[in-house]
Amino acid sequence: MGIKVHGIPHSGATLRVLAAVQEKELHYELIPVDLRSGAHKQEPFISLNPFGQIPAFEDGDLKLFESRAITKYIAYSNEGKGTSLIYKEGREMADLAVWMEVEAHQFDPVVSKLSWELVYKGMFGMETDNAVVEENEAKLAKVLDVYESRLAKTKYLAADSFTLADLNHLPGLQYMKGTKVNRLFDERPHVSAWCKDILARPAWVKVMALQKQD
Amino acid sequence: MGIKVHGIPHSGATLRVLAAVQEKELHYELIPVDLRSGAHKQEPFISLNPFGQIPAFEDGDLKLFESRAITKYIAYSNEGKGTSLIYKEGREMADLAVWMEVEAHQFDPVVSKLSWELVYKGMFGMETDNAVVEENEAKLAKVLDVYESRLAKTKYLAADSFTLADLNHLPGLQYMKGTKVNRLFDERPHVSAWCKDILARPAWVKVMALQKQD
Repeated sequence: MGIKVHGIPHSGATLRVLAAVQEKELHYELIPVDLRSGAHKQEPFISLNPFGQIPAFEDGDLKLFESRAITKYIAYSNEGKGTSLIYKEGREMADLAVWMEVEAHQFDPVVSKLSWELVYKGMFGMETDNAVVEENEAKLAKVLDVYESRLAKTKYLAADSFTLADLNHLPGLQYMKGTKVNRLFDERPHVSAWCKDILARPAWVKVMALQKQD
Repeated sequence: MGIKVHGIPHSGATLRVLAAVQEKELHYELIPVDLRSGAHKQEPFISLNPFGQIPAFEDGDLKLFESRAITKYIAYSNEGKGTSLIYKEGREMADLAVWMEVEAHQFDPVVSKLSWELVYKGMFGMETDNAVVEENEAKLAKVLDVYESRLAKTKYLAADSFTLADLNHLPGLQYMKGTKVNRLFDERPHVSAWCKDILARPAWVKVMALQKQD
């Protein structure tokens, strides 16, 4: 029983779930999934996630998948523990909903393509496609212009406190930090301060330490 | 004051928001946005949505964007009215979170590409790319296999009652219905029954009637 996270510390979606678990100071077990042998496309994994993607999550007999659904579940079902991460009413609830969707639909599609080109392809000995990088750098710059305006008004994306809307960005921000795209963040003072702040959170530092052990 | 939806009845994301408004039986005003003249990329629209995409939403002085954030806000802030659409605790809340993410990350990316190729390109006199259609038909078939297993267990995606997880699918289902891809839904009995059921909901029928007036 207890919390089990099935995934690996080099998967952004797994890292997102681990960030929520750490912010809530929960005990958990990280169960590695051997992607090279295709374990995520076979039983017993596909009984946890029929789409065959990491991470999957267990809390007792509850089985969940989709990283953003898992972080949401963790935040709502552990209200009294660790960082609050959510707002349940009023304008803050509405703004939290908006900025969680912005991460999923504006930020993530662009940053996923850049991560693939600039981080993962290198790991697999593949060549970066510079045209794809250029196209997505331009898109990311526009997204970050909107973030800069927003973060001039509120300290974090949804409100003045750190929430799931910020947390869900952590893996993407971390990956971009080690690439040439990092300048797009550095050039924008509010975005830059926000990145520095949330990447230094003790919970995230603990999560990133798992990559070194891996 | 009151509810204002800025968008057009031929936009899937606008239709998603209108479905939620109708399920909650709310009074609202639909304010058309002239995409041809680029009104969505200029003031006053970009003060409603800095990403310059329809729909945008106002409820009194609250301004929101991202269709799935808006449907969520509508469901949570109108609990006593119309259809419930959400679960706020327990396993149902967790399953609702999972299946809302499945719509956004598994179903929508594939169906958006198919809608572009098979519906919108025709409207603009552009030619369908059959390779893209073929690739995404194969992906959709796999997604619908998972839906078929799920809908054999529960009447709707998240639980035995209709929720936002189902509602958010309505525009995509409606677009696919008029194309050759429809057979992928028809071939799967539980998926087929689910589509027939939710597309016949009185709230959705009212929303679709707006397309005829347009």
